[in-house]
Amino acid sequence: MALFTLLPPKAHASHHLLLSPPHFPISRRNAIGFQKTHLLPLNPLYHSNSLASAVPMPVSTPPSARPGGAVRSSLIDPDGGALVDVVVPPAERAARRAEAAALPAVRIGPVDLEWIHVVSEGWASPLRGFMREKEYLQSLHFNSLRLPDGSIVNMSLPIVLAINDADKEAIGDATDVALVRPGGDFVAILRRIEVYKHNKEERIARTWGTTAPGLPYVEKVISPAGNWLVGGDLEVLEPIKYNDGLDHYRLSPRELRKEFDRRQADAVFAFQLRNPVHNGHALLMNDTRKRLLEMGYKNPVLLLHPLGGFTKEDDVPLSVRMEQHSKVLEDGVLDPETTIVAIFPSPMHYAGPTEVQWHAKARINAGANFYIVGRDPAGMGHPTEKRDLYDPDHGKKVLSMAPGLEKLNILPFRVAAYDTVEKKMAFFDPSRAQDFLFISGTKMRTYARNGESPPDGFMCPGGWKVLVSYYESLQCEETGKHSVAMSV
Amino acid sequence: MALFTLLPPKAHASHHLLLSPPHFPISRRNAIGFQKTHLLPLNPLYHSNSLASAVPMPVSTPPSARPGGAVRSSLIDPDGGALVDVVVPPAERAARRAEAAALPAVRIGPVDLEWIHVVSEGWASPLRGFMREKEYLQSLHFNSLRLPDGSIVNMSLPIVLAINDADKEAIGDATDVALVRPGGDFVAILRRIEVYKHNKEERIARTWGTTAPGLPYVEKVISPAGNWLVGGDLEVLEPIKYNDGLDHYRLSPRELRKEFDRRQADAVFAFQLRNPVHNGHALLMNDTRKRLLEMGYKNPVLLLHPLGGFTKEDDVPLSVRMEQHSKVLEDGVLDPETTIVAIFPSPMHYAGPTEVQWHAKARINAGANFYIVGRDPAGMGHPTEKRDLYDPDHGKKVLSMAPGLEKLNILPFRVAAYDTVEKKMAFFDPSRAQDFLFISGTKMRTYARNGESPPDGFMCPGGWKVLVSYYESLQCEETGKHSVAMSV
Repeated sequence: MALFTLLPPKAHASHHLLLSPPHFPISRRNAIGFQKTHLLPLNPLYHSNSLASAVPMPVSTPPSARPGGAVRSSLIDPDGGALVDVVVPPAERAARRAEAAALPAVRIGPVDLEWIHVVSEGWASPLRGFMREKEYLQSLHFNSLRLPDGSIVNMSLPIVLAINDADKEAIGDATDVALVRPGGDFVAILRRIEVYKHNKEERIARTWGTTAPGLPYVEKVISPAGNWLVGGDLEVLEPIKYNDGLDHYRLSPRELRKEFDRRQADAVFAFQLRNPVHNGHALLMNDTRKRLLEMGYKNPVLLLHPLGGFTKEDDVPLSVRMEQHSKVLEDGVLDPETTIVAIFPSPMHYAGPTEVQWHAKARINAGANFYIVGRDPAGMGHPTEKRDLYDPDHGKKVLSMAPGLEKLNILPFRVAAYDTVEKKMAFFDPSRAQDFLFISGTKMRTYARNGESPPDGFMCPGGWKVLVSYYESLQCEETGKHSVAMSV
Repeated sequence: MALFTLLPPKAHASHHLLLSPPHFPISRRNAIGFQKTHLLPLNPLYHSNSLASAVPMPVSTPPSARPGGAVRSSLIDPDGGALVDVVVPPAERAARRAEAAALPAVRIGPVDLEWIHVVSEGWASPLRGFMREKEYLQSLHFNSLRLPDGSIVNMSLPIVLAINDADKEAIGDATDVALVRPGGDFVAILRRIEVYKHNKEERIARTWGTTAPGLPYVEKVISPAGNWLVGGDLEVLEPIKYNDGLDHYRLSPRELRKEFDRRQADAVFAFQLRNPVHNGHALLMNDTRKRLLEMGYKNPVLLLHPLGGFTKEDDVPLSVRMEQHSKVLEDGVLDPETTIVAIFPSPMHYAGPTEVQWHAKARINAGANFYIVGRDPAGMGHPTEKRDLYDPDHGKKVLSMAPGLEKLNILPFRVAAYDTVEKKMAFFDPSRAQDFLFISGTKMRTYARNGESPPDGFMCPGGWKVLVSYYESLQCEETGKHSVAMSV
């Protein structure tokens, strides 16, 4: 039996007696039978400059040296205890397809398909389909769901399917419906449905904390959608594929857990991103690994986990990002031996503190027991005002207090910036603030778009080349469009 | 030891496996040492026509017949285990007042004072002051607070104090500030303060689920407020009084618990209201009592608990309502022997499903173990669209699933309407819908304003007279104003 103790909580700015005890140790018996005290970093990390304070420190036997030592993928249990898998087994598909053809049909859009993908593989476990009203209301008001046994799982985003009046009428009293792609293919059956009102204004206000026009997901998905939601249990007729040359990156939570097993990982730390990897990200990921090793883990594995669903128009497209990430590994900035690159199939909400909980929760289901969170996760500029939409610190604060995420180790990271003296990305040192240059995503894209080089050491050359080529191709395209327009 | 069993859950419309088990029995050992299984009506009551399904049914020994039978006010523990009381003891007041005079002063408004009143007496237990950012974020995102021991209490409304830039500058690095009434009197010291950003848009969107202009609390309190919030622990210099002739109705949670003891209540059911009591309300309250008696309670006591803080302009003022409530008891519509009328000092948000949780949670602290919830609690019309702001059923659904309210028995009530055949208020019978007349608050006010009589049996004559007089006095006032305006 290996016992872990906790680092002493760091001093923090707030002293409210009611909620000040920042660490709340959760005892659970893990799959290989030893008692481990998990650290729940409730809040002290907000002001932490050191990553080390966020993670449990094994003072006696490190995990890989424990008796009977077979390493398991069960570093962390899926929410609800078991991974949901609602893909119909191959032998039953023909029958289900025939059944689907006889049901009222609901036509779905590309983002609906992404959600079906997400649910079908268990990223949203224990959710088995689109939310019925009870789940929708809990998600909207409490960011969590209460399970039959009284336990709580996190669920911060409503995972819902909107239909319009005509759909509702066509459904009538049916209890099951077929979900159909624009091309006409049957994707899934939705069972034991419940139709309820889609109050878009309330959904938007409670999810984003604003109703300002210009939120990408709202404009793309919610505004054009119908005024009803239909919840039910999914049966997905076959695994969702995109045939875009990237499907091999789309590992399911089950496949990821197997891969962690195969690599004999004794810790998995997930890094969610929707941007190219620069050397600041790499510094942080490598530093995290170093610290986990220092703490006694023998084989911490990085899950580099770019989001692959809907993103806003000015984000770098998935295919370009995947190519850039490959270069980062080829160039040796991250070690392929201890890194798994895979696509997280969720669409992006840009809902800041609300969405970061979803990002973390889904990675629990994928088997990651450490989650890295940075400045302004899932944030963006306010669509109508000149400011960030969210307080950049709220994401990690909310994440560290979120119901249902107690079993996940949250790793808030220090800000990295370009150190103009050392000529490399480094953790920001406030004692010589003038030496540091902050390069935002917008600035990075501007460099690449204008064919300018970023400061030496900002990104590995191979990765940078991918971006430059992408923006060149965009300009060619625009020039092309322009010429066409001119020639008409 | 008396053991309670639960009624079988009623059939309900939704069948989602994930969350379908509607009843989740919570075992707790209550203050008099017997194990009681509490019913958490998670959801089946949405479609219930019968109040009886909502409450635990003692099949063996009713509570008052239990051995050692002294009845205690501890029918339900306050949130956090103990009632907060942050009023400075008389002997220390002079010293605190002197200290306050030397601290940076923050001027507060009338609604801030109401919140100080609320917190000072423990309605918001375990909250001891205005929220610091950690509590604010938990309230906004999760409608609940996690306590040091890991337990959860409900806290759906942010209880915060806004200050402006000048206040913030005046406070500087001070750790404590004095709170001062407009007249210049010191009200309280706020200790170990934390100043953080007041993002009004986000607060409004997440609390109300809309940012439409015209929300009464927003217009009165939030829009004119500063862009900073200051959290801290309150020390209130003396009990808050309003000297409006109604202070004797303002019983604190401690006083209410004592009164329940004195009356030897073995169940307390709270009824929150901000409107005059009509015979439909009375029917419901009397029916609840009857059912509690049928279940074996010997002395269920009604807490008729009008809200006394800020309300919107077209609501009937508190003094008129209190007079109306008195008449209802005088006329024998409610039994004074088993009814306690007291004022709940909170201001009103009109925030529907979010606010109803606050209304219920505060009554736990006051010692009520049953809470009656009706159609569209704390709701109002949408300020800019022709519809209810909230789905009228969401309040009771959200309430029945809300974190931290598990120990409270929620009693959703059946709709009462005027039965034109029986000529009285009665529970709506859908099989003869045409016989029923729904008289909304607006319609009732219109009757009273125009000096028309409502249908016979809608309200007791004494109570109705109070309303008619009030609206007559309003008209005189307006005519008076008008004449003045004409004479200028």
